[in-house]
Amino acid sequence: MKLAERTDTLTAPRIARSARDRYGTQLPTGDVMDWLAERRAAHRFRVDRIPFDELRGWSFSPDTGNLGHASGRFFSVEGLHVSCEDGPVEEWHQPIIRQPEVGILGILVKEFDGVPHLLMQAKMEPGNPNLLQLSPTVQATRSNYTGAHRGAGVTYIEYFTRPERGTVLADVIQSEHGSWFLHKGNRNMIVEARGNVPPDDDFRWLTLGQIGELMRRDNLVNMDSRTVLSCAPFGGDEPRALHSDAEVLSWLTAQRATRQIRANRVPLKELPGWTRGATSIDHDGGRYFSVMAVSVRADSREVASWTQPLFEPVGLGITAFLTRRIGGVPHLLAHAKAEGGILQSVELGPTVQCVPGNYAHLPRERQPRFLDLVRHADPARIRYEAIHSEEGGRFLNAESRYLIVEASEEEVPLDPPPDYHWLTPGQLTALTQYGNYVNVQARTLLACQRFAL
Amino acid sequence: MKLAERTDTLTAPRIARSARDRYGTQLPTGDVMDWLAERRAAHRFRVDRIPFDELRGWSFSPDTGNLGHASGRFFSVEGLHVSCEDGPVEEWHQPIIRQPEVGILGILVKEFDGVPHLLMQAKMEPGNPNLLQLSPTVQATRSNYTGAHRGAGVTYIEYFTRPERGTVLADVIQSEHGSWFLHKGNRNMIVEARGNVPPDDDFRWLTLGQIGELMRRDNLVNMDSRTVLSCAPFGGDEPRALHSDAEVLSWLTAQRATRQIRANRVPLKELPGWTRGATSIDHDGGRYFSVMAVSVRADSREVASWTQPLFEPVGLGITAFLTRRIGGVPHLLAHAKAEGGILQSVELGPTVQCVPGNYAHLPRERQPRFLDLVRHADPARIRYEAIHSEEGGRFLNAESRYLIVEASEEEVPLDPPPDYHWLTPGQLTALTQYGNYVNVQARTLLACQRFAL
Repeated sequence: MKLAERTDTLTAPRIARSARDRYGTQLPTGDVMDWLAERRAAHRFRVDRIPFDELRGWSFSPDTGNLGHASGRFFSVEGLHVSCEDGPVEEWHQPIIRQPEVGILGILVKEFDGVPHLLMQAKMEPGNPNLLQLSPTVQATRSNYTGAHRGAGVTYIEYFTRPERGTVLADVIQSEHGSWFLHKGNRNMIVEARGNVPPDDDFRWLTLGQIGELMRRDNLVNMDSRTVLSCAPFGGDEPRALHSDAEVLSWLTAQRATRQIRANRVPLKELPGWTRGATSIDHDGGRYFSVMAVSVRADSREVASWTQPLFEPVGLGITAFLTRRIGGVPHLLAHAKAEGGILQSVELGPTVQCVPGNYAHLPRERQPRFLDLVRHADPARIRYEAIHSEEGGRFLNAESRYLIVEASEEEVPLDPPPDYHWLTPGQLTALTQYGNYVNVQARTLLACQRFAL
Repeated sequence: MKLAERTDTLTAPRIARSARDRYGTQLPTGDVMDWLAERRAAHRFRVDRIPFDELRGWSFSPDTGNLGHASGRFFSVEGLHVSCEDGPVEEWHQPIIRQPEVGILGILVKEFDGVPHLLMQAKMEPGNPNLLQLSPTVQATRSNYTGAHRGAGVTYIEYFTRPERGTVLADVIQSEHGSWFLHKGNRNMIVEARGNVPPDDDFRWLTLGQIGELMRRDNLVNMDSRTVLSCAPFGGDEPRALHSDAEVLSWLTAQRATRQIRANRVPLKELPGWTRGATSIDHDGGRYFSVMAVSVRADSREVASWTQPLFEPVGLGITAFLTRRIGGVPHLLAHAKAEGGILQSVELGPTVQCVPGNYAHLPRERQPRFLDLVRHADPARIRYEAIHSEEGGRFLNAESRYLIVEASEEEVPLDPPPDYHWLTPGQLTALTQYGNYVNVQARTLLACQRFAL
């Protein structure tokens, strides 16, 4: 009986090789924008805001006021009451998206000329500022791929529902935005194909280095791509770090055990502090986000036209890692970030993750920590900067400035406040192989740090 | 700046050394029973069943019928509605314990004569069949150690609330019984002490080998000890296995993504299929468990007397791993076990985990898989067997036969049913360093496999 090596030592150097290749063999990076423009022209896309009463198949429940679909599938918008004993705000109410299904975000990989290439899709999502972005090979809710849309099949889905057809390089359920989703998880998969993969006009093979180049542009590589890329088993490139892996886990465990967050579902109807109008549900202080609705026409999707609710944040976010070389090794300042919608109350987030506008009414001492440092950083210290938007299937124009900013010893010591900790990119990548450790914003920045720097 | 090695290579051989030492230097194994008898005699323990209306501080809410404490702390007994699309039973209602706090289960370690010893406690729990068992150094709910009991402090708690006083060897939040608890997690910690540790009559230092010997006895090493022991970083003793670690994770991810369990809290009042009497809440079919109440008198606890509800299972459980040597390496047959009360619907469980009596009314084809193989195993193939009870602070006489039974190729092929997978003990131990992967029953058996074989 031949056994397998428990630890795969072959994939990490291949991932690194693909990351170093900024040219690829299938489509020059400089031609990607032309190809996307061509796909945009080939399909008719149109998104219009509509009042709630023009939603088809969606309605507010008379009992709870929750907004759901007649089929009971897809997702629903409900109310959430969150209390946290020691947070900056002790309790609040908010609308939340409940979507208990686990979808698939999958990228297919294949070697060309000895270099792994990734099959990326030109995909429209109604909430994207520019509609069409570079997406994973497959981006499908369970309703999608089991046919609840009554639409066409999801292209290439069989590589992910039957991954034994290829070789699985990464496969993990990751959380998504904990302040907008209740306990949402998607399966992040990277699968290497065996044999020929049939071509499709909406799909192109790119190296990780090419995708990294494209991640330097605004609103081009979508959130679903970024989270899957963060799970690529890049390998333990740094054998040493400020803290051992066991110390990092112990610190996070302590944060989880001592910071208690209680999140309870409540009816969306008469949610304190929120008001429902004909076209939106808004926060009475004009902060956070609105729930609204759109109609969508597109002929490149599984279904040619549909209506749906979306969440629309009120302002541009800032999402940033502070970085320092410590003992010659780059480290990122992770924050043990508590959010009402995540399963274990705390995950590792970036140093800064907020919409500054939501704090504009608060005094200086209640502003998010390190925000000023990032916002007013000397451009010479900005290692990475681009605007990215979040999942365009649920969020409308949810844009954030993503940054990696160099900090000094004076600004952030080796021993930062207790809910912050210096981790290496290798430590974060190791944790992305397990679910519920690294949040979706930190995963985006990790992918940028890996592939766009 | 001196960095730390990310991977600790020094602890695993020390754990192994302690596991090989079946004698210890502080208390001969043969004297442990005498010491426990002495502690039993030194304290007065008395547990009596009482009707619900003799509970002090506990009451059924008029609205929901939920059973809770006046302080709002400790735990509550509520109702749960569980539906699973593809399980053997499609939906059911049950009482469930809700205890959203994260407690600490911690074992203190110290070297004597170069061998790590663990500080074990003689501790009474009202639900233990024999009341007093060998427990971790610290076993405390958050209410305990933050003083909600208004009792004495928890001995040695400072080593775990301020672990920087020592060296953390393991620190992870693990799930507990998913069919009795809703989303319960406890912090499992192993901390090596620096300097002198003050002695206490209720505590003794034992090696892992000694504890392993004691785990061969019935009802001696309590559940809290067993789960903490399973997290000991034993090290990757097998470099090869039937499946690579990445394949194992991918299989579990697929099980989690495709098997949908919905668990919703409902009022305990008028829970379908359950009836509340003066002294217990029982299943109408006489199956599963009853909710009942006890009064406890003890002078060795933080509080000298109290009353509380307990869950009392209706029968003796069977919890077993089938094992095979594959390519010369021992493997255990793990089951992707779905339960209503766990956070991610599926964790790795033992091959068999059930109370056979709950299935006695069902035809042969609906009996738990592999149960017969375990129940009727030739004694020559039983590698490990002992009766252990579950957490005596919540469960009354919740006993199960724990077994490790050798299987043949004919009985279980290398390619078992899709929700089963062959893993090595090293693979399971590696997963216990992360939360929500290995369930509490599998953790007990893993500790037995590691230290009692």
